[in-house]
Amino acid sequence: MKNRPIGIFDSGVGGLTVVKQIFKRLPREEIVYLGDTARVPYGTKSPETIKRFSVENAEFLMRFKVKLIVVACNTASSTSLDVLREKFNIPIIGVIKPGAAKAVTVTRNNKIGVIGTHTTVKSRAYEKEIKRISKGMEVVSKACPMFVPLVEEGWVNEDVTAAIAKKYLSELAKKRVDTLVLGCTHYPLLKSMISKVMGKNVKIIDSAGSVADEAHDILMALGKLSKSSKRPNHRFFATDAVEHFVRIGEKFLGSKINKARRAAYV
Amino acid sequence: MKNRPIGIFDSGVGGLTVVKQIFKRLPREEIVYLGDTARVPYGTKSPETIKRFSVENAEFLMRFKVKLIVVACNTASSTSLDVLREKFNIPIIGVIKPGAAKAVTVTRNNKIGVIGTHTTVKSRAYEKEIKRISKGMEVVSKACPMFVPLVEEGWVNEDVTAAIAKKYLSELAKKRVDTLVLGCTHYPLLKSMISKVMGKNVKIIDSAGSVADEAHDILMALGKLSKSSKRPNHRFFATDAVEHFVRIGEKFLGSKINKARRAAYV
Repeated sequence: MKNRPIGIFDSGVGGLTVVKQIFKRLPREEIVYLGDTARVPYGTKSPETIKRFSVENAEFLMRFKVKLIVVACNTASSTSLDVLREKFNIPIIGVIKPGAAKAVTVTRNNKIGVIGTHTTVKSRAYEKEIKRISKGMEVVSKACPMFVPLVEEGWVNEDVTAAIAKKYLSELAKKRVDTLVLGCTHYPLLKSMISKVMGKNVKIIDSAGSVADEAHDILMALGKLSKSSKRPNHRFFATDAVEHFVRIGEKFLGSKINKARRAAYV
Repeated sequence: MKNRPIGIFDSGVGGLTVVKQIFKRLPREEIVYLGDTARVPYGTKSPETIKRFSVENAEFLMRFKVKLIVVACNTASSTSLDVLREKFNIPIIGVIKPGAAKAVTVTRNNKIGVIGTHTTVKSRAYEKEIKRISKGMEVVSKACPMFVPLVEEGWVNEDVTAAIAKKYLSELAKKRVDTLVLGCTHYPLLKSMISKVMGKNVKIIDSAGSVADEAHDILMALGKLSKSSKRPNHRFFATDAVEHFVRIGEKFLGSKINKARRAAYV
């Protein structure tokens, strides 16, 4: 049981930024990653559809007898944790709570900005979680739907990207938030651009590191941290053809993906 | 049989530009439209995945005993017509051939530009079709993947959209094409912007009108044009929640969508 893998899913490649942190924080753990690249993106779709997709993704991961599932997609985390926890008898963690908790710790003026997809922002999941942790917080949210296609296109340093970032973020900058949560796993690739627009006094929160910490803490509490000294055999799956997944995915993971296979349930 | 509906599918709302033309050209025909909004976009996904989705979409339309299927999505047309024609025993038409034929008729200098999604451009479907019709044609293609999210975001007249259009199209403009095929059903909403970048001497081809003509010609040849004098009862379906589909779809259709229902097979 201890040496079973951790399952992680995302709508596509973005969740690999979380995997990268899990590799660092939990180097003995084996992971099974699933990117639902045939149905990406989730951020423009309805909560009902995302719940259905999330359950299917988790069912796929359950085939590998995973001991924990990490929902490494903000949109899926903001809509589907309840239904997943009802349906599956293992711990399920998302990316919202760790990101919200980190933002509350970091802010000095209690004004926190959150950016994400349409569906994430509409769910108000970050806002609710931040205020649950600390009532006095002011939260300003903004959907930035063009950021995902810009990252997918590889336009992370282009002038048009800077113009779009200004368009989305100037309002948040004016409201004098001192902390900005990147509420989408694609956004860390635009971090330097976003930071330039927000100004150097605004702290940018990318929840991937905190998610890895939470995975560690839960497995430790349950006595399920891997004790294996074998080199872990990580497995990567995508629902669309894997060539594109591997090529783009390596940018997010920051290391090689030796092999990926197609998950044929979609 | 004559009065059976025409089935039309697209990855999302873009195919409604084709429906608009069918309403004009074939006002007695009843249509069943399906937008696969739960899995949109298709243009960044692999041919294998799009074929699988196209077959599922056509199977859904077959439940309504349609007499003809229009694949109103360039990406699906460029990858899936063969498999659909093998599988279903009714006429299946796509948007590539009508657009290609119109471009060949319109060009004066025999240099045709084609813009579309990654997968459409990679398939070289327009290029093959244009050269099949007329060997002497020169075809220059360019993938413009940001255009779909820009249209979905409603940014059809923004400065950033103009900047992105210039980035994509300047190369085509330099090659002195005199005709440009809009090889994606989202692009007609950017027509005036695209035309501004290309210059007023470049003719912009939107295949929707030609597709409606082809549907008419095939049904006439088969003796299957509707003779009904009842007001047609059009039906609209989407695989994701329908509110967003209706709101955005009306921009593409240019008229009201009274009711849309969710197609539950995804």
